[in-house]
Amino acid sequence: MPAQDATVAPTVAPTDDATDAPTDAATDAATSDADVDLLVARTRFGADGLVPAIAQQWDTREVLMLAWMDEAALRETLTTGRGVYYSRSRGGRWAKGDTSGHVQAVREVRLDCDGDTVLLLVEQAGGACHTGDRTCFDADRTVVSGGQE
Amino acid sequence: MPAQDATVAPTVAPTDDATDAPTDAATDAATSDADVDLLVARTRFGADGLVPAIAQQWDTREVLMLAWMDEAALRETLTTGRGVYYSRSRGGRWAKGDTSGHVQAVREVRLDCDGDTVLLLVEQAGGACHTGDRTCFDADRTVVSGGQE
Repeated sequence: MPAQDATVAPTVAPTDDATDAPTDAATDAATSDADVDLLVARTRFGADGLVPAIAQQWDTREVLMLAWMDEAALRETLTTGRGVYYSRSRGGRWAKGDTSGHVQAVREVRLDCDGDTVLLLVEQAGGACHTGDRTCFDADRTVVSGGQE
Repeated sequence: MPAQDATVAPTVAPTDDATDAPTDAATDAATSDADVDLLVARTRFGADGLVPAIAQQWDTREVLMLAWMDEAALRETLTTGRGVYYSRSRGGRWAKGDTSGHVQAVREVRLDCDGDTVLLLVEQAGGACHTGDRTCFDADRTVVSGGQE
């Protein structure tokens, strides 16, 4: 459960409004080394050194996948603009698309309120899921009764 | 990293197309006890008994928050249609909105390709974040240079 920690208050590119409009990154400054260090410092990795990262297609807002990042993966993503993760099954660096060609160009990285979840706004080439589906959440859906307003 | 497991192939309400269009739940059958059992059986909880759950506003597709569910929370969410989680900080059940009134009506529950992440499509009342923001990802954004197509 999110618990606000004053020590992780945003200091880089905060936005005061609560809209979720994708940033037009072309008009913004480049990511500096200082920006990268600040964001990494604010990220609260788990006991296993990993943080969950949600990849969302920046324009359609599809949730594509959830994967994990260690500090090295987060730094590489921030400095190269390409989605790089930590593969828990293989125990090492996983550059999305190295095998499939389905790379992710990362436009924006957001941290949640307590810094323990990353949200990536990406341009996903091809399917994000190794099954060939556009997203990892396309195949298995259950409608919930009683959940309508 | 998603690794397809034939034993968790979808058997409930699969969709063949890869679109992310929200389901018009009003036209679908109610969630049966069997549906709940099947979905819970396909969910791969971690060693700590928890699975990450992404809450997304069903129509605007904003990613609102990431929280955690144990089996009891997932069952309660499926059977009541209300977003219920497991609070890692408090070590127990957390029914979203009990304190704030900002409840989540859950319209659809999706599992990812290997069953270890849950995506909830919800109608969020008020702000999802305890800070008052609409989402937990509104306050801390870093634009990534080099991530443009």
